[in-house]
Amino acid sequence: MGMVGGGKDAFIGAVHRIAANMDGLIELAAGALSINPEIAKESGKMLFLPEDRTYLTYEEMIKKESELPADKRIDFVTIVTPNFAHFAPAMMALDHGFHVVIEKPITFTLEEAKQLKQKVEETGLILALTHTYSGYPMVKQARAMVQGGELGKIRKVWVEYPQGWLSKLSEREGNAQAAWRTDPKKSGKSGCMGDIGTHAAHLAEYITGNKITHLCADLNVMVAGRALDDDGNVLLKFDNGASGVLMASQVAAGEENALKIRVYGEKGGLEWQQHEPNTLLVKWLEAPTQILRAGAGYTDRLSSYATHNCRTPGGHPEGYLEAFGNIYRNFALTLGARIDGTQPTKEMLDFPTVEDGIRGMAFIDNVVASSTSDVKWTAYQA
Amino acid sequence: MGMVGGGKDAFIGAVHRIAANMDGLIELAAGALSINPEIAKESGKMLFLPEDRTYLTYEEMIKKESELPADKRIDFVTIVTPNFAHFAPAMMALDHGFHVVIEKPITFTLEEAKQLKQKVEETGLILALTHTYSGYPMVKQARAMVQGGELGKIRKVWVEYPQGWLSKLSEREGNAQAAWRTDPKKSGKSGCMGDIGTHAAHLAEYITGNKITHLCADLNVMVAGRALDDDGNVLLKFDNGASGVLMASQVAAGEENALKIRVYGEKGGLEWQQHEPNTLLVKWLEAPTQILRAGAGYTDRLSSYATHNCRTPGGHPEGYLEAFGNIYRNFALTLGARIDGTQPTKEMLDFPTVEDGIRGMAFIDNVVASSTSDVKWTAYQA
Amino acid sequence: MGMVGGGKDAFIGAVHRIAANMDGLIELAAGALSINPEIAKESGKMLFLPEDRTYLTYEEMIKKESELPADKRIDFVTIVTPNFAHFAPAMMALDHGFHVVIEKPITFTLEEAKQLKQKVEETGLILALTHTYSGYPMVKQARAMVQGGELGKIRKVWVEYPQGWLSKLSEREGNAQAAWRTDPKKSGKSGCMGDIGTHAAHLAEYITGNKITHLCADLNVMVAGRALDDDGNVLLKFDNGASGVLMASQVAAGEENALKIRVYGEKGGLEWQQHEPNTLLVKWLEAPTQILRAGAGYTDRLSSYATHNCRTPGGHPEGYLEAFGNIYRNFALTLGARIDGTQPTKEMLDFPTVEDGIRGMAFIDNVVASSTSDVKWTAYQA
Amino acid sequence: MGMVGGGKDAFIGAVHRIAANMDGLIELAAGALSINPEIAKESGKMLFLPEDRTYLTYEEMIKKESELPADKRIDFVTIVTPNFAHFAPAMMALDHGFHVVIEKPITFTLEEAKQLKQKVEETGLILALTHTYSGYPMVKQARAMVQGGELGKIRKVWVEYPQGWLSKLSEREGNAQAAWRTDPKKSGKSGCMGDIGTHAAHLAEYITGNKITHLCADLNVMVAGRALDDDGNVLLKFDNGASGVLMASQVAAGEENALKIRVYGEKGGLEWQQHEPNTLLVKWLEAPTQILRAGAGYTDRLSSYATHNCRTPGGHPEGYLEAFGNIYRNFALTLGARIDGTQPTKEMLDFPTVEDGIRGMAFIDNVVASSTSDVKWTAYQA
Repeated sequence: MGMVGGGKDAFIGAVHRIAANMDGLIELAAGALSINPEIAKESGKMLFLPEDRTYLTYEEMIKKESELPADKRIDFVTIVTPNFAHFAPAMMALDHGFHVVIEKPITFTLEEAKQLKQKVEETGLILALTHTYSGYPMVKQARAMVQGGELGKIRKVWVEYPQGWLSKLSEREGNAQAAWRTDPKKSGKSGCMGDIGTHAAHLAEYITGNKITHLCADLNVMVAGRALDDDGNVLLKFDNGASGVLMASQVAAGEENALKIRVYGEKGGLEWQQHEPNTLLVKWLEAPTQILRAGAGYTDRLSSYATHNCRTPGGHPEGYLEAFGNIYRNFALTLGARIDGTQPTKEMLDFPTVEDGIRGMAFIDNVVASSTSDVKWTAYQA
Repeated sequence: MGMVGGGKDAFIGAVHRIAANMDGLIELAAGALSINPEIAKESGKMLFLPEDRTYLTYEEMIKKESELPADKRIDFVTIVTPNFAHFAPAMMALDHGFHVVIEKPITFTLEEAKQLKQKVEETGLILALTHTYSGYPMVKQARAMVQGGELGKIRKVWVEYPQGWLSKLSEREGNAQAAWRTDPKKSGKSGCMGDIGTHAAHLAEYITGNKITHLCADLNVMVAGRALDDDGNVLLKFDNGASGVLMASQVAAGEENALKIRVYGEKGGLEWQQHEPNTLLVKWLEAPTQILRAGAGYTDRLSSYATHNCRTPGGHPEGYLEAFGNIYRNFALTLGARIDGTQPTKEMLDFPTVEDGIRGMAFIDNVVASSTSDVKWTAYQA
Repeated sequence: MGMVGGGKDAFIGAVHRIAANMDGLIELAAGALSINPEIAKESGKMLFLPEDRTYLTYEEMIKKESELPADKRIDFVTIVTPNFAHFAPAMMALDHGFHVVIEKPITFTLEEAKQLKQKVEETGLILALTHTYSGYPMVKQARAMVQGGELGKIRKVWVEYPQGWLSKLSEREGNAQAAWRTDPKKSGKSGCMGDIGTHAAHLAEYITGNKITHLCADLNVMVAGRALDDDGNVLLKFDNGASGVLMASQVAAGEENALKIRVYGEKGGLEWQQHEPNTLLVKWLEAPTQILRAGAGYTDRLSSYATHNCRTPGGHPEGYLEAFGNIYRNFALTLGARIDGTQPTKEMLDFPTVEDGIRGMAFIDNVVASSTSDVKWTAYQA
Repeated sequence: MGMVGGGKDAFIGAVHRIAANMDGLIELAAGALSINPEIAKESGKMLFLPEDRTYLTYEEMIKKESELPADKRIDFVTIVTPNFAHFAPAMMALDHGFHVVIEKPITFTLEEAKQLKQKVEETGLILALTHTYSGYPMVKQARAMVQGGELGKIRKVWVEYPQGWLSKLSEREGNAQAAWRTDPKKSGKSGCMGDIGTHAAHLAEYITGNKITHLCADLNVMVAGRALDDDGNVLLKFDNGASGVLMASQVAAGEENALKIRVYGEKGGLEWQQHEPNTLLVKWLEAPTQILRAGAGYTDRLSSYATHNCRTPGGHPEGYLEAFGNIYRNFALTLGARIDGTQPTKEMLDFPTVEDGIRGMAFIDNVVASSTSDVKWTAYQA
């Protein structure tokens, strides 16, 4: 693995490394870890990278690595830079024959995402997008139960993602994370909806298997002086007739990272929340609610998608890093199968791809368009 | 107290009686308990009413009671009939000098509610509306904290009310509660929003002290064959600039009566849910979340509105019936003060009145108007 | 109902009145509310008692009431004085033909409890003991499930009752509740174990239907200067071979009234806690945990004992006062059946009696004996 | 790192590898992964070990690795075999100059543990013991708060560890985990207390900083035909006068791995449970309970021990594997500091050592001795 971005003090780069390390399948072998050469070098040293594979630019890394013998070079490039700097290294990596992992949102614009998709199709290479929350075993369990018809036809989807960390104008107080995430030049046309609303929308479509067809968005800038939305509420309609609500906020003071989804069908409902991710509540119309637990002994009740993505038995809580690790693990297993000439299982293939990336970019475009429209329903265009 | 409606097998009538009995301040002395004479008589007997005060119609009750000597007759009439049958007995009771308690929604139409308000003002009598959920001590605590500025300016209100009991077409299967509540002739122009959405809207305005100024509603009939909405999502704007979402559903299969509200301000947030009503979560932007508990020993931290409405020390859970009882108790204490010629305290006076009733009827009107409009925001008219 | 004790500012007297009022079956008709004549009179006035039935001593009340015509006098006496003052009024009430309700612990000594039992048997009158916590619907559900064999043979019982309100030497700081409860002359030979340990022991035996046969007690005085135990841990053995632990503490700083019980059998386990009393967790060895809820729609899954003791549908939380009310209600229904010459149902008859009172007094004796013994196991003597 | 034991299908070996991999500080470089040569080889291949470092016995591994040049050989040996096979490889590793990580309980007997301690002292090498649960950030927070006197003098410790996985005689049904853990020849003189009771005892002493001085144990074999205790309750006395209870069970049907501890002092209490490990409840005598969260923004409120052991901000749950990883990480950082000739920080040095191992073995001895004694209190001997 060669990493673009993620130098010391970057949050998400460290997360990617832990996630990639975890299962002993992937090794950090090269990096272009910062656009600041000093930081790039120090970070490489800190991470035990050899000096000759500690690159100063992604162009250098991709070029030099592609010139190494096949058994010495990296297999894939992982891109953990701010949003505006995803597209170019991803395109170059694919062009040089490297598979790609990208932090979400996939690109800066929908148009870039579409070009990337075309490139992936042309090259036949694998691209994984780290929509972390779909990596949780009990999210996969939820999806499997909906797909299996256990809830009957889905009527209502309710997804919420409150955070509080942007309750002040932190971007003016030296918070680097806040600075780029609220800067339209680095983050894109939406703040809160791009950063976390896309996770919520992805989760809703992933679990239900239904697509949003119409939406009605109310985006707000709650902190005076901020350049992008920091709060929003969106009404949703899905292709199967279900109604929905998506709430995302970064000014919900006192909240951490409280992603939660509820899905109701004719026969019952599901509830999952990220703060307690090993539990899935299954509510029945005419029977007691059940508490399904990741790794539990009643393996006949759990989907193969759930059990495949667990490392420990019930009661040994797995968390965010393991969910992240599941995306890397499935990506690596799929890659390994390709290298070995075998067929990856359906559970291995279950990670977000460029298609999800396009859905995410389209969600941002549609939400922003709706928020400035006086018409109630905006037809979702992808 | 003389009761209109609430014969045996009626749900809410029994609740009103327990709530009224609880504190030893009110006695059921007369009743016109059913439009069915047999049921009226049987119910009276079951409730230990004397035969001569077991009336067959509300007209008879109000007339005869008003002819009794002042120290023998009822002090007030409580009306627990279906929505369409609130207005007439309320007007007649006021006209005959009786105070009134009414189950919500106050009337069948906004117009009736306005007439009732005029009558209340003319007569100077007291009318209490049983918006139960505002009777909970920790709801009052939440209101007091917002009013006291502890959260700073409110930015976001999020209220949800999922129920699942109408997930099937129960109105066709002999469920009497379902039958009248889904019948436009008995319930009014909205089903779910009238029945429970009004509670949610009341709670949001009660706690924040802010008024809804605009809304954007998506009402749905999820169960084929149903005559009124059984599900809805509403975007809200408040007069202080806060944004909001109100979700109410009676087809959230597996949910009981899961009213919950979250309010976020500049400095922190509050979370309260009806299923665990003695707890109020107080979330701070830069300090640990606190768990405030009804009846707790740290009385300096609790509002006088909260402590006035508790009967037991912390850890002795009070519930729905006590919240209901608080409305009756405060109504009775206010009435008692008037009779004694004293001034009721501000805590006693804190119960819903005809003003809240008008707000509720207006909410129904506005939500229904918005739901059929293609324009995003409907200005709230009251 | 005639009440002994429970003047204004007494905690438990007010609870008894609310509990008795709640269902409209019982009326406070007479009282000897305090040994202080001024307080007795004021309290009577406050509670709307007629002056001629506001007595100054229980002797006066019992004597005068017994001389009233049968249809004018009270049916029963309820005794809510401190522990040392239960026995005499109870005996006198029974001797004069009145049924009795007593706050727990039933008497000051085991010997008194046995005499009371003999008197009850001689007179054929009804005595109810207010072990409140056994009045909760989901406690009754738990009992029914164990009795029905759903868990298989019970192996482990774990009951805990932490409170924090005696963490300081409050009895020296003007806290009247603390003063009598920590005074051996008023409370008896145990403090914490007598006050709340008895509730825990009752709950364990009530739910499992098994009797404690051996115990090993560690009682502590944690607050220097206190005359009675304020903390204790007890190992238990039950007659069916189950092992158990009982923990009770009044110096668990920060705890309210956190009674909780867990019972494990061969096939599964149950968990119930008083702070959230409408929920019963049912844990299965090889299937997901279920959340059983009081008043839920799946009535086939709930015991008739649970449904009989609910007043509202699921999601309308009932609490401590309703549990207390259930004891009064069942006592009153049983009494009513006797008066009507009918047979009370088994659900009506399910309230604590003098037998439970004897068990409670024996528990205190055995725990205190064990705590001063160097031998590990003390055989339980009743 | 060279691993002894942990071939494919072993539970704890895989956990050790993930924990060691996680932070990119440690690499699996050699292994003697099974006493079965076929499994040893297959496991080595599966884990990408080179063939020449896939050894068939630990003796071979330690000998051969010690003969490699200093910069090629492993730095330490990690031992993940069943209990009876810890001592010999640990002694041999130390004798050959390798640091050691051992799964708990440290040895088969207390005597062996003492010999190991002597060896550690002689060699000056580092030994880490994987008492996982003390690796959680909020456990470290709890310890820091107690040590800092925030709760005042500790009065009561209550630790529980219910599991249900041995509710049947699984050791006779082909469950390999159950087989060795219930076999006195492989597990030692205690089953449940050795396996999980030791974790509970360690947690109690670790958090409070107090030592158990007396105990009174009730050990049980609940499943007929089992050779070792599968359930137990222990009364505790601590050196500061606190009382305590330790409950551990492997027949608590329906429980997963529900380790929980509560500690109460004069001023407040703490509650932590492993199933939701990122939360620490802090209960105050006269103020609302606080919810402290791992990784939260209020870093001034969190101990440096807690923040040092977090990888992600609040709301990104870390779990069992991260707690495990913290032990490896701190061990590796301490080792790194020694190699670099620097002083490890106090936070790095905070991992369990041979001293904790001796405490654990002594706990087993004392609990078993007490359980067969008729005397109530057994003085703890170490």
